[in-house]
Amino acid sequence: MGNGIATGSTDIAALGARAMAMLDTLGAISDAPDNLTRLYLSPAHRRAAHQVRDWMEAAGCEAHIDAAGNVVGRYGPAEGPVLYCGSHIDTVIDAGRFDGSLGVVAAILAVEALAGEGRVLPFAIEILAFGDEENVRFPTSLSSTQAIAGGYDPRWLDVVDGDGVSLAQALREFGGDPDAVTGLARDPAQALGYLELHIEQGPVLERADLPVGVVTAIAAAWRADCVLRGQAGHAGTVPMGLRRDALSGAAEMIAAIEGIGAQHEGGVATVGRIAAVPGAVNVIPGEVRFSIDARAPGDAMLATMLAEIDAACKSIAERRGLAFTQAPFMRAPATPMAEPLQQAFAAAAHAIAGDAPLIPSGAGHDAVAMARLCPVGMLFVRCAGGISHNPAESITQADAGCAVAVLIEAIRRIAADQAAARG
Amino acid sequence: MGNGIATGSTDIAALGARAMAMLDTLGAISDAPDNLTRLYLSPAHRRAAHQVRDWMEAAGCEAHIDAAGNVVGRYGPAEGPVLYCGSHIDTVIDAGRFDGSLGVVAAILAVEALAGEGRVLPFAIEILAFGDEENVRFPTSLSSTQAIAGGYDPRWLDVVDGDGVSLAQALREFGGDPDAVTGLARDPAQALGYLELHIEQGPVLERADLPVGVVTAIAAAWRADCVLRGQAGHAGTVPMGLRRDALSGAAEMIAAIEGIGAQHEGGVATVGRIAAVPGAVNVIPGEVRFSIDARAPGDAMLATMLAEIDAACKSIAERRGLAFTQAPFMRAPATPMAEPLQQAFAAAAHAIAGDAPLIPSGAGHDAVAMARLCPVGMLFVRCAGGISHNPAESITQADAGCAVAVLIEAIRRIAADQAAARG
Repeated sequence: MGNGIATGSTDIAALGARAMAMLDTLGAISDAPDNLTRLYLSPAHRRAAHQVRDWMEAAGCEAHIDAAGNVVGRYGPAEGPVLYCGSHIDTVIDAGRFDGSLGVVAAILAVEALAGEGRVLPFAIEILAFGDEENVRFPTSLSSTQAIAGGYDPRWLDVVDGDGVSLAQALREFGGDPDAVTGLARDPAQALGYLELHIEQGPVLERADLPVGVVTAIAAAWRADCVLRGQAGHAGTVPMGLRRDALSGAAEMIAAIEGIGAQHEGGVATVGRIAAVPGAVNVIPGEVRFSIDARAPGDAMLATMLAEIDAACKSIAERRGLAFTQAPFMRAPATPMAEPLQQAFAAAAHAIAGDAPLIPSGAGHDAVAMARLCPVGMLFVRCAGGISHNPAESITQADAGCAVAVLIEAIRRIAADQAAARG
Repeated sequence: MGNGIATGSTDIAALGARAMAMLDTLGAISDAPDNLTRLYLSPAHRRAAHQVRDWMEAAGCEAHIDAAGNVVGRYGPAEGPVLYCGSHIDTVIDAGRFDGSLGVVAAILAVEALAGEGRVLPFAIEILAFGDEENVRFPTSLSSTQAIAGGYDPRWLDVVDGDGVSLAQALREFGGDPDAVTGLARDPAQALGYLELHIEQGPVLERADLPVGVVTAIAAAWRADCVLRGQAGHAGTVPMGLRRDALSGAAEMIAAIEGIGAQHEGGVATVGRIAAVPGAVNVIPGEVRFSIDARAPGDAMLATMLAEIDAACKSIAERRGLAFTQAPFMRAPATPMAEPLQQAFAAAAHAIAGDAPLIPSGAGHDAVAMARLCPVGMLFVRCAGGISHNPAESITQADAGCAVAVLIEAIRRIAADQAAARG
């Protein structure tokens, strides 16, 4: 374990303790008196940004809060190739303290460790603490991340929050600059990649009894509202053979949708909403409305799943004499993680944690926007019960330390690869 | 076709025209200006009762409105054996004009026809126009029918309607007598049987292209509220294999319940209500609540169905790691129709309509209460689309005539059997 590779148990334990202490500090910065609520450009967001900026500087970075409200800390030369690393510090309402913040704290600790080693890296590291990932206050989509990635939609500046405050006005009150936001876009030619560490928000690692997992892709997603029409009738007087029961038809479709999700490795399909009309104990439902949410690690897999769902539902409806319509209202392509960054995380995780499963991410992250700029890679950290967006969100100190150590080791390996590539 | 058996087409056409004219008259008597609403003991019920009493008298009966608000018309001797025949003249809110009224009008026309033949029957016929079959105004169960049948619950006199009027007070205002209601009970020793003609309220006769059917039994019925608990989760991050999706489990149960209904000849099983919690497009449902309504022509068949439903649901819940509870809130035994009365209706129907299927009744009728007093038999009449409890309720004049002719012929055959039995 020589050559500065800090995989010893002492270092990991210390990293875990540092991470948890910083997350405690950050988790106490809230706009709400009784829970953690830190929406984009709020007073608590501003206080948290100042705290993060101070940490970045203490870790050896040149740090500032940018025109879009992101906290940016640069370690290494001001020019030349850059490896980005971070996550977000805004939260949902009544949030947990790990979603987003863990990735920011981990990046700071990683830079601090690398700086402490006196190591000269073949790139700068820019730590990014984004401000608008949860998109709770304004109807945007990763706006502050897109400012960095070069995908900022200027119309976002005109959208308003629930109090009628425009994003431009909120930015000015925060200390940002709406006129400078689109100028934040980084040069793709210098962007080596973006690394993000995040809680899993799912149960896979807990079930596998492993602290970290390597993300393969952020899933492609599709949502639709479906309507199934049959014929209402008296539950006592219409024989089974003469029914056109919309709920029995929907039940068969739900079973088919579940089966299609299960048949595709990494794919998921969910019916979350259902309503039967008229909805009386003694009336055969004449109409059922339900939702479908389908996701897959790749666009082709999602397309196959949707074709199978469509065919199954149409076949069931036809056999039962029901009218079926589906109205899609959301479709997002997959964001694949870059192979070299997956490999760096996997090699580092195997060295430190022993094993790390490959996991598709069903939820979206800042990496979706950063993929516009450069290759992206993500590491998931085990969280209790897969629970997130909830005060019960929880990770262990040991897992936090392990995850930060994996991030540090991954950066070392990327640096070694870069150096080797340059001869 | 001699010997006064009036099965000729001319008679049937005339009977149909008479029936439809009387149903038009009765259907115009309403408490609501724009639809047919005639609740128990309302002003419209009183006007309708007077109209029916007048018709009974014109048909050759001694008629009166009794202490419970029933209209009673007796044809034949005041003492001795009695064949009861009728249905109800109260309606639901915004009703059709055939449910109940058809059976009363048919009984009047049957007595008129038999009286016109100058035939001496070996029993009296008592036409009964019940007042509280729909049980819309008061929370009772066939109260005025039970007064005749001997099953009146005196506590019913204290129940109140939506305006706080007690049934006893409403009876007095109508001209009835709460103190005399329990004294209306007939002597079972003199009660030969009860015949009721009613619209089918289902699609079987329409599908069979036949005007009438012979009821085999009024179904045993059972209802329950079910709760299925799994685990809510993120629709994107929880893999299919780690889910405990309450809605997928409920879908499998609904399919099983439908299949169990279909496997039992004459049985039906319906899930009419369903709700998924939390009910969001991107959340795996952690809890589902749904209702079950199961009916069968016999108590044993219903018990078998319920055991199968229970076993299927428990097996599905266990396999999926879900917690399943069902809370039954209604159970009513079957009311079998008396074999001799089924045979009389069937023979009469075969003579007049050519064929008549045997049909269980999934809905309740006055015959359920009258079965306490004596053997009961019912004849169903085809109705358009199986629709009832709706202004769109509809039968044809030809079917009405045919049904009344079958009732007349059935009474003739019962009379012949009675006469033969006495030697």
